[in-house]
Amino acid sequence: MEKLLDQINLPQDLRKLKVSQLPQLADELREFIIQVIADHPGHLGASLGTVELTVALHYVFNTPYDRIIWDVGHQAYGHKILTGRKEQFASIRCLGGLSGFPSRNESEYDAFGTGHSSTSISAALGMAIASNLKGEKDRQHIAVIGDGAMTGGMAFEGLNNAGASKSNLLVILNDNGMSIDISTGALSRYFTRMKASKSYNQLKNSVWDMMGGDNPERQSHSKHLISKLSGAMRSLISPKTSNLFEAMDFRYFGPIDGHDIPTLVAVLADLKTIQGPKLLHIVTVKGKGLKQAEEDPTIYHAPGKFDSSTGQLIPTKINLSLAPKYQDVFGKTIIELAKANPRIVGITPAMPTGCSLSMMMKKMPERVFDVGIAEQHAVTFSAGLAAEGMVPFCNIYSSFMQRSFDQVIHDVALQKIPVVFCLDRAGLVGEDGATHHGAFDLAYFRPIPNLIISAPMNERELRNLMYTAQSESNKLPFVIRYPRGRGVTPRWKTPLEIQPVGKGVCVKEGKDAAIVSIGHIGNTGLQAIEQAGNRDPGKRFGLYNMIYLKPLDEDLLQEVFEKYPRIITLEDGVLAGGLASAVSEFAVRHHYTNEIHSIGIPDRFIPQGSIAELQKLCGMDPESIAELLLA
Amino acid sequence: MEKLLDQINLPQDLRKLKVSQLPQLADELREFIIQVIADHPGHLGASLGTVELTVALHYVFNTPYDRIIWDVGHQAYGHKILTGRKEQFASIRCLGGLSGFPSRNESEYDAFGTGHSSTSISAALGMAIASNLKGEKDRQHIAVIGDGAMTGGMAFEGLNNAGASKSNLLVILNDNGMSIDISTGALSRYFTRMKASKSYNQLKNSVWDMMGGDNPERQSHSKHLISKLSGAMRSLISPKTSNLFEAMDFRYFGPIDGHDIPTLVAVLADLKTIQGPKLLHIVTVKGKGLKQAEEDPTIYHAPGKFDSSTGQLIPTKINLSLAPKYQDVFGKTIIELAKANPRIVGITPAMPTGCSLSMMMKKMPERVFDVGIAEQHAVTFSAGLAAEGMVPFCNIYSSFMQRSFDQVIHDVALQKIPVVFCLDRAGLVGEDGATHHGAFDLAYFRPIPNLIISAPMNERELRNLMYTAQSESNKLPFVIRYPRGRGVTPRWKTPLEIQPVGKGVCVKEGKDAAIVSIGHIGNTGLQAIEQAGNRDPGKRFGLYNMIYLKPLDEDLLQEVFEKYPRIITLEDGVLAGGLASAVSEFAVRHHYTNEIHSIGIPDRFIPQGSIAELQKLCGMDPESIAELLLA
Repeated sequence: MEKLLDQINLPQDLRKLKVSQLPQLADELREFIIQVIADHPGHLGASLGTVELTVALHYVFNTPYDRIIWDVGHQAYGHKILTGRKEQFASIRCLGGLSGFPSRNESEYDAFGTGHSSTSISAALGMAIASNLKGEKDRQHIAVIGDGAMTGGMAFEGLNNAGASKSNLLVILNDNGMSIDISTGALSRYFTRMKASKSYNQLKNSVWDMMGGDNPERQSHSKHLISKLSGAMRSLISPKTSNLFEAMDFRYFGPIDGHDIPTLVAVLADLKTIQGPKLLHIVTVKGKGLKQAEEDPTIYHAPGKFDSSTGQLIPTKINLSLAPKYQDVFGKTIIELAKANPRIVGITPAMPTGCSLSMMMKKMPERVFDVGIAEQHAVTFSAGLAAEGMVPFCNIYSSFMQRSFDQVIHDVALQKIPVVFCLDRAGLVGEDGATHHGAFDLAYFRPIPNLIISAPMNERELRNLMYTAQSESNKLPFVIRYPRGRGVTPRWKTPLEIQPVGKGVCVKEGKDAAIVSIGHIGNTGLQAIEQAGNRDPGKRFGLYNMIYLKPLDEDLLQEVFEKYPRIITLEDGVLAGGLASAVSEFAVRHHYTNEIHSIGIPDRFIPQGSIAELQKLCGMDPESIAELLLA
Repeated sequence: MEKLLDQINLPQDLRKLKVSQLPQLADELREFIIQVIADHPGHLGASLGTVELTVALHYVFNTPYDRIIWDVGHQAYGHKILTGRKEQFASIRCLGGLSGFPSRNESEYDAFGTGHSSTSISAALGMAIASNLKGEKDRQHIAVIGDGAMTGGMAFEGLNNAGASKSNLLVILNDNGMSIDISTGALSRYFTRMKASKSYNQLKNSVWDMMGGDNPERQSHSKHLISKLSGAMRSLISPKTSNLFEAMDFRYFGPIDGHDIPTLVAVLADLKTIQGPKLLHIVTVKGKGLKQAEEDPTIYHAPGKFDSSTGQLIPTKINLSLAPKYQDVFGKTIIELAKANPRIVGITPAMPTGCSLSMMMKKMPERVFDVGIAEQHAVTFSAGLAAEGMVPFCNIYSSFMQRSFDQVIHDVALQKIPVVFCLDRAGLVGEDGATHHGAFDLAYFRPIPNLIISAPMNERELRNLMYTAQSESNKLPFVIRYPRGRGVTPRWKTPLEIQPVGKGVCVKEGKDAAIVSIGHIGNTGLQAIEQAGNRDPGKRFGLYNMIYLKPLDEDLLQEVFEKYPRIITLEDGVLAGGLASAVSEFAVRHHYTNEIHSIGIPDRFIPQGSIAELQKLCGMDPESIAELLLA
């Protein structure tokens, strides 16, 4: 059979098809995604779940004039393929290739960049109101948001504002019951009740016929039907508590089957003609069409390489000599600590698997809290726990911690409440790219009084920092930041010891120049020293591992500044505000005139790519550092 | 008549009274607040509205063992007075006196510090779960949150998590229809529908009797009644759309009259015995008991001095030679700009009066958007507007902008979307204290790529920066930060000119030392130079006004470093990360060995007080700066 997908380069090609052809196109699109992602790892489950929606949206709406915003854009792979990027699709998440998320730089079809969650309603509302002001009354603005993303407070702020506006805004709630892990919280249970209500099943069977089947002429007459339908639905679905969205002054439609293209096309076409804010609730299956992905959506959220025909994951060779992932060291160590210290609890905003808190969740479910995609709440909830004597380990990815900045200042640091913050994915994260690099944390935390800020160079230090943070001796909020991926110590399970607060260590003595580093990137510094030593055996270079950015070990810095003529600061974070700034300030304050160079993330957003490629891009790779040592 | 309030020092004294005495106590408490605040300016309206609730809560609950968290704590004046701080109450908001907000440092009755909005549910839930884990099943945890604060997404994140928990959490929705200005958004309209429904008026008349009047014995039997009551209410109140909170798995009770103490006492006593998350909706009048405050709650939110017997504001002498407030310059200039540039729109998260965007709201209502207490949404909504060609001026207080940090990075800077951010209340704000100082903005914005960061030294520069930010030539997000209060130019309405981006100016030439300043604090630098010159007429000091922190005027800095042996950086913000860091980095990068000193906010949280007092505390007052110039 001829492939429809081969004929489609842009949505205008798609719109030439008959509705009856769209299911075939969706199947091909799904197959294409599976084929490519099997060999070019990326996000899988979310985009498999939105294939039909993607086809229907571009069929019905006049993109790019009409605006589609994909909340947490990893559901937008199909969208990329149908909007002129099919040929480049295999380059996704690679340096110089397509971003794994929508990006305004990449395509006019990507109306708004979305790597973080829960932003789509706000952005779409802004666009809708801009259209109103410009008199573009026909322009449509669509936010596609998952049930997980809907737990983010920002989505609610957007609903509250949108409901009171008269804008042409359609919110599509893509309800698959999942974030990366299973969705949690009252909202998720509420959606489940909505879906489980009788009406939903009745609806599935009747809506298609009511909408006029695949007869385009009948479809155009169905506007009054959908109004009737929505009325009927509203009265059918849990009449006592319906309806959250109507309370927010949205017109609510659904739930409907998000894999039924003819229905989607008919419903969307009708919604296009209805003014004002409206919400369509669609029910989808994450990983739809790939059996394993449907059965284990968490693993298949971003599965790595797999066999496209069978769906089987391709096992990575287990190499016992490899160092463990920092994530696993965190996950196992917190259990070890929690067994000894009953005050320890774990908090994650919807990332239990990613940060390995899932391990503790299995062993001590009553002491781990997945609060949903809700970083602000996660921090203040932790503050509440700590205010009453618990020791919360609040684990948040560095780039998502940006969401909780005020809460760290106002609810934690100002009140000197000893919450332990574990910042996973600190520094460059690789293929997830600009939205996900944990570039800013050292810089944005350093100005905050009362915070202890640390970063381990290896597994032992991660364990010791965790041990120190939860010890009776610590009375302050305590930040531990560490990168995604493997450390350097295959035999990582060292005895737990206090890591003296505000004390760095000399890792390697030298005389010609010293690297002053913080965190895991210090290991790259050591490689650079080795390379530089090989190239010029007459020179000797030192490496000083600060461990703590705050309080800063000024005694150690003094030692370094007295001994070495040249000093290179090294951090896996932005230069402005972090270690480079702290060392510069120290030098100025103490009137040191040593030559200082700073290596870190420069003042621009860094794209996606492998970590090695990106480090090279930033001059943070061993070769570049060695070059500077020898300069 | 003997005053009951005289007998009350702590809640345990209060609990000795009969329920029938409580209304008198509430009246006295209200009178006391009015008397004191008339002479010692502070927040008024919110606390007048919660007098009865405060009395009832401390009467029913076993504080401080039971935890009360007052969301946006300026509603907690009555609470402070009843919990051991009556004698000190007149010191409120003064240096060394009581904080204007609850503070854990100040009293064990202040369970959690709350200066920013929408944090209470999260903190109370954390405490409730801590109690669960510690086996303190009898302990109660109460969050009192206004309808305005309920629009903050964080409150919703808390509800979502709490609804799914089995914690002893009572949320009291204090619904007065107001933030500082009138509450906006769909939620507010929803609450209005709830209150306007028939049942509420029926309820007002019947609830008191049902609860057992003021007969304590009958009250104790009323538990089943309240359940019945709430069921009845639920079916009465807008049956089609009820009920948002039940959707979130909260048991909902109300709405009831929040000024009716016997009812409050009866209902609260019953709620105490009901397990799980529950929400009590009370209706109050902001400014209750002071006619003018009821009629103009925005003005009387924090009215300044007034006549306690008549309620009349005491007019501050109008001095035509005074410079205008930066707020008014902003408010008038944006209208001037918007008349010429139809793309300009104004956005405020619930602060139209405070930031003077209310002026434009009156003239061009369709171009100003009060999005509710929702800073995150405000920023991304602005990004959506700008993405479609509008020029949004998003005005947010500096300390509240901390809430939008991720949105500025992810939704604005990363996508190079030219939103104009006007950061009001930047720097030390005075009496509002630690939670409200705009201390961090220069430091937290400087690490972000693509941002322009500026601060005017006077009215003309504010106008020119606004003009520049909206001009066709600007393609980047543009931050303008300025302080609360008056500038320096009585005849402020200067012609609008482009303020060249990244260019500072020499305000005063000198030779012995130079102040390098940013923003309004430069004027304090000028005063210091004058003082220093008077003390040692042989010396001459320069002042360089950077205007832009980013891009930094390196040419001007070079000039300064070549000319002056000593350089003093001066900024109204934290030292770590802001101008002091930028200048230190510059010096190190260019191998300058000049002596550099830095003046700004030190690395600790600064309490409340007058701005002059706080500047002295930080060494930012003219005398301290002069001292350093002469050192």
